[in-house]
Amino acid sequence: MIKIKFLSVGKTKETWIEEGLQEYIKRLSSEASFEFVWFKDEKSLELQILKEKQVILLDPLGKMMNSVEFADFLFREFEREGSRLSLAIGGATGFSDEIKKGRFLLSFSKMTFTHQMSRLILLEQIFRAFEIKKGSPYHK
Amino acid sequence: MIKIKFLSVGKTKETWIEEGLQEYIKRLSSEASFEFVWFKDEKSLELQILKEKQVILLDPLGKMMNSVEFADFLFREFEREGSRLSLAIGGATGFSDEIKKGRFLLSFSKMTFTHQMSRLILLEQIFRAFEIKKGSPYHK
Repeated sequence: MIKIKFLSVGKTKETWIEEGLQEYIKRLSSEASFEFVWFKDEKSLELQILKEKQVILLDPLGKMMNSVEFADFLFREFEREGSRLSLAIGGATGFSDEIKKGRFLLSFSKMTFTHQMSRLILLEQIFRAFEIKKGSPYHK
Repeated sequence: MIKIKFLSVGKTKETWIEEGLQEYIKRLSSEASFEFVWFKDEKSLELQILKEKQVILLDPLGKMMNSVEFADFLFREFEREGSRLSLAIGGATGFSDEIKKGRFLLSFSKMTFTHQMSRLILLEQIFRAFEIKKGSPYHK
């Protein structure tokens, strides 16, 4: 079982986003388990990142990949990190330089999204990555 | 009142996506009205695009903008087109060359999303564009 941890600021208030997240968690339940860790502000989030062994940062200046490249990247990370992955979602202005140093920065858009929409988009792309690896028709 | 038309393939099956769309439509209801037109397949969508005066195409090979650039672009289009805008959402492989010729191509990500997620992301960015133009704190 792959373990994926999301680190982000602010709990989901919108029930429809929570339902969307639950839908993808359910679809992935036989392959991956998810943990969501909340922080009250960006500062507390950054302090936690410093304590984590390995965290991928979602940052506006990060590397852009298409869904197939993201699937390859994700499964390489699972292999390298013993089926564990932590992802941190930054704010509109991204992370501080200290945090970014030596960590992988990922971006899915030049556009800015709410933290909640970012979580939803990321989770859908993780689900898509599993479907791509299975060769399912979901991707097309 | 600004009129925005979405042209896409396949109705929304997920209730949570429908709720998300309705949330943004409601928040924008004093400024913009939305029309959603559905097509049974990409072919029928492309036939309709040929009949429309002006359509922005959402295509994986389109121009990427950040949210502020998108807001500027959107409001320039409203001005130029008499407060009307049509947006067509293509499939994973994008539109045919005939359709793309002479039309503006927009992309918000290198990643592939379902048509439904694309509609949600696009609507959230349109809402964000209105907030940016108002100078509201939503954007940050």
